[in-house]
Amino acid sequence: MKTRADCRQLDAQDRLRPLRELFSLPDGVIYLDGNSLGALPKAAPARLAEVVAQEWGQGLVRSWNSAGWFNLPQRLGDKIAQLIGADPGEVVATDSTSINLFKVLSAALTLAAQDTPNRKRVLSERSNFPTDLYIAQALCQQRGYQLQLVEPSDLSASLTEEVAVLLLTHVNYRTGAMHDMAAMTAAAHAAGALTVWDLAHSAGAVPVELKDAQADFAVGCGYKYLNGGPGAPAFVWVSPRHAERFWQPLAGWWGHAAPFAFSADYRPAAGIKRYLCGSQPVLSMVALECGLDVFAAAQTLGGMAALRTKSLALTDLFIELVEQRCAGNDLTLATPRPHAQRGSQVCLQWQPANASADSPAAFAVMQALIARGVIGDFRAGDGNLQQDILRFGCTPLYLGFEEVWLAVEHLKQVLDGGEWKRPEFNQKHAVT
Amino acid sequence: MKTRADCRQLDAQDRLRPLRELFSLPDGVIYLDGNSLGALPKAAPARLAEVVAQEWGQGLVRSWNSAGWFNLPQRLGDKIAQLIGADPGEVVATDSTSINLFKVLSAALTLAAQDTPNRKRVLSERSNFPTDLYIAQALCQQRGYQLQLVEPSDLSASLTEEVAVLLLTHVNYRTGAMHDMAAMTAAAHAAGALTVWDLAHSAGAVPVELKDAQADFAVGCGYKYLNGGPGAPAFVWVSPRHAERFWQPLAGWWGHAAPFAFSADYRPAAGIKRYLCGSQPVLSMVALECGLDVFAAAQTLGGMAALRTKSLALTDLFIELVEQRCAGNDLTLATPRPHAQRGSQVCLQWQPANASADSPAAFAVMQALIARGVIGDFRAGDGNLQQDILRFGCTPLYLGFEEVWLAVEHLKQVLDGGEWKRPEFNQKHAVT
Repeated sequence: MKTRADCRQLDAQDRLRPLRELFSLPDGVIYLDGNSLGALPKAAPARLAEVVAQEWGQGLVRSWNSAGWFNLPQRLGDKIAQLIGADPGEVVATDSTSINLFKVLSAALTLAAQDTPNRKRVLSERSNFPTDLYIAQALCQQRGYQLQLVEPSDLSASLTEEVAVLLLTHVNYRTGAMHDMAAMTAAAHAAGALTVWDLAHSAGAVPVELKDAQADFAVGCGYKYLNGGPGAPAFVWVSPRHAERFWQPLAGWWGHAAPFAFSADYRPAAGIKRYLCGSQPVLSMVALECGLDVFAAAQTLGGMAALRTKSLALTDLFIELVEQRCAGNDLTLATPRPHAQRGSQVCLQWQPANASADSPAAFAVMQALIARGVIGDFRAGDGNLQQDILRFGCTPLYLGFEEVWLAVEHLKQVLDGGEWKRPEFNQKHAVT
Repeated sequence: MKTRADCRQLDAQDRLRPLRELFSLPDGVIYLDGNSLGALPKAAPARLAEVVAQEWGQGLVRSWNSAGWFNLPQRLGDKIAQLIGADPGEVVATDSTSINLFKVLSAALTLAAQDTPNRKRVLSERSNFPTDLYIAQALCQQRGYQLQLVEPSDLSASLTEEVAVLLLTHVNYRTGAMHDMAAMTAAAHAAGALTVWDLAHSAGAVPVELKDAQADFAVGCGYKYLNGGPGAPAFVWVSPRHAERFWQPLAGWWGHAAPFAFSADYRPAAGIKRYLCGSQPVLSMVALECGLDVFAAAQTLGGMAALRTKSLALTDLFIELVEQRCAGNDLTLATPRPHAQRGSQVCLQWQPANASADSPAAFAVMQALIARGVIGDFRAGDGNLQQDILRFGCTPLYLGFEEVWLAVEHLKQVLDGGEWKRPEFNQKHAVT
């Protein structure tokens, strides 16, 4: 069994440890929720202050050109491209993940209507992130498609000749389970379907190779593992095979070939730029760039491959310690054990078969942990197939091995001492 | 003829003059482009620094609740509602103007398809802001509608029984011409059509009374007269008569009735909240709130009515001085003279009939003015019906009368001295 001293030793040997110094993290907190909102890059406050006081305050409207604001979607997109196996000029940072998904799924359905007009299904996973399913529902309803939701194990068998588009999130938000992108894309293509990948929980967390996988479309999130700040703009990638085949319906002026010609007719820009729509929130874009620049520093230490190695070591350690130290609590691992099937988070749930009225309530356990400064999060089950889940994101950029040891120690104490039973940890506040 | 001393006297008598102290403006600049990007509210740098360091850095993911991030779209929406004649709970600040226009025009077309299925036209103005026309084009094409573009003077006569939706920008971006919202809405309704209003150049610049006008849908911009910062989120209002009749196609989780239930089926939130889609850029939202809070200060000094009075006095003065001091240059006023037909900007162009190879090039004149610290902007004509235009936005929150006098003095010097002929003012740099 690994001791705290062992874990401290792992930190001392960790070549990526200097990256932690690029983040501001609060004292007394073990942060295991970078999969929901990434931590603050230390460079961000000064950079934002400069943009606000100088670029906005002094430069005013001139800064669209002089400070390069117009180019932010492409400049940030190029930095994101390096993390997801895409080439420069193929990605733009813009809008929200939901809106970008609307764009690419619209595109995929339009291409499918041309190439495979008899296919009338969009296939996805029942436990895909809900906003993906909502956007897909609305588009399917509008375009006369059926949204077919299956369990992950049934995906391959469901790739019938009726499926036009396979819509998947690479790493599942609830369980941390990761699809084999290359294999699923190949299976979809072999079955005649296009693929749309949501990289919300994988960009910056695991190596992604969109072009190697021959993927068709992808979107992702700026505020999770990319550390872009609350609600940071998202991103969108389209394979160059498809990028110019489609005039997306959110056809705003930023996607126009000559936005400042102010011509009455829409003429889409070349390549991925046509996936832009309106003006972008510059301050939030600038914060996102600070998050992305951390990865440039990581590049000198081995990049995504080194981050992945550390991420797996962190999650392996988390699993090992929970199983050793919290045994007897009927806690089970919701995250797949094989490395190739796991993202950068560990999810725990109570064994449904053994769950009783006395089983710890996952919500209350997480509240007790947060009160101790161990910040993970809770995702409610649906009372049916899905159990309540405790999520622990292990961001290799800033999380240390001793912190994992301490987090599990806190979990053990919360469970062993029945601390989770306290009334204050059992009051659910409505999110308004 | 008003002298500089007269104008200084007007500033001394200006009850709204203290509002200028709420903005940071660069020394040596006369800022006449608040209709493109509003100036920096002095409160913004400290507020943003607090949000970045404390709410993001220290609060981390907890701040979605504890710092009220989730409520920003509604909280800001309520502040905007006061400026546009809407009630609390009817407006949300979110996404971009283009995307919000897509939402409301989708809604309007869906309602029209139910209520007036035989009408297959969207009527708009040829010189409407292009992104509005692009979004309308794409939606019309998708839904089987025809986009009919006419001159402003032909709008009323074009409201035939074929028109489903009248799509107008309240104040024209090129000319500053303002529609009579109540009259046009009444005419549209009398003709059986719905109205969609773009308030990009009117919210915060002129009094807007959406509910009094019985308007149906409206969108607007956060970074112009609302001073929300570069690319600040936009806003959307839907009449309560219509708000719940429609499930908009950008059906993301933020518009769900219970976003954190993570249920697989979309169930739209009540009222305007269903017009939300994905996570919002918090840092940019916070800056927008600083811009909106200036209007709360203005409220104690007479609010939008007092701002409108000053705005008209500023634009009247600008017009009077240009006509007196820059006479003999064939400059003509592109902005309507009657107060009721004018927003908060003055636009100048060269008399097309008199224009010759020796006529000053509007682009070069503006470059020369900007080099002198007089920042307005240039909008290219189409080489056909539209002339090149010099735009001068007169934001009553921070512009003074003496500044207007000085701006016209600079214009006179640029024209009289032939300064605009210098090569450096005639090089157009591509916006990249």
